Amino acid sequence: MNYHFGKQEDVPKQEVKITGSRGAYIQWLVTKDTGSPRYALRRFLIEPSGVIAYHKHKYEETVYVLKGFAEVRVENETRKISSGEFVFIDQNVPHSIKNVGNSELEFLCVIPYVEDMSITPLEG
Amino acid sequence: MNYHFGKQEDVPKQEVKITGSRGAYIQWLVTKDTGSPRYALRRFLIEPSGVIAYHKHKYEETVYVLKGFAEVRVENETRKISSGEFVFIDQNVPHSIKNVGNSELEFLCVIPYVEDMSITPLEG
Repeated sequence: MNYHFGKQEDVPKQEVKITGSRGAYIQWLVTKDTGSPRYALRRFLIEPSGVIAYHKHKYEETVYVLKGFAEVRVENETRKISSGEFVFIDQNVPHSIKNVGNSELEFLCVIPYVEDMSITPLEG
Repeated sequence: MNYHFGKQEDVPKQEVKITGSRGAYIQWLVTKDTGSPRYALRRFLIEPSGVIAYHKHKYEETVYVLKGFAEVRVENETRKISSGEFVFIDQNVPHSIKNVGNSELEFLCVIPYVEDMSITPLEG
C-alpha cells in the first residue's frame, strides 16, 4: 500500500477497556492495516468526567490535545493541558488521563509497534 | 528522560527548505531531544498559497490536518483534505502539500527515525 487517505469520522470508535476507565473511546486512524509498519496514530475521545485509568505499557506514547482540557498524571506529576499542548511519555512510565473540562476531550496519541503491546493496569 | 510536557507556542518555527517550497514552516514538537527514540511529531504551518514542494524520502509519514485546507498530491493522485482528515504516505512515495484555503493551513506530521533521513526534491 503506497498511501492511504482517511477521515476520522469514518473510523469506528471503540471503548477503552483499561481497568478503571470510563467514558473513553479510541479510534485507530493509522495502523499496520492502513500500511504503517512502525507506528500507529490514534484519536481519543473522553466524555466530561471520563478517564483513562492509571496504567503502563512497554511502548512510549505522545499525546497531543486537540480540544478540551486534560489532567495528565505521569508518575508523581499531574498537569492540566489543553489544545496545542502535548506530552511525551516514555515506555514503562505509569500515567493516566482525565477529562477535567465541561466538554468532550479530544486528543491524538502516537505509539510505536513493539513486540509486547500489552497494557498493565495499576493502582492509584 | 521519563516524560516531557510541551506547548506548541514555545517551539521555534523553522522555514521548510525543500527546493521549490514557499511559505511553509515546521516545528519539531517531539523528537529524540525530548526523549523520543523512534519517531518525531512535527507541526507544519503553511501560509495561503504556500507549498511544500514535490519530494520523497526513505521514511513513511502521516499527515493529520488540524486547520485549513490542504491539497495533497501523492504520486498521481491529488486530493483536498481538511480538519480531521489524514493521509499515510509510505517510504519513497513522492508527495507535495499546498495550502489551497484562504487562511493558514496547520497540520501534524509523524515520521519514524530511520538511518537515512535525507529528502530528495523532485520535478513536478
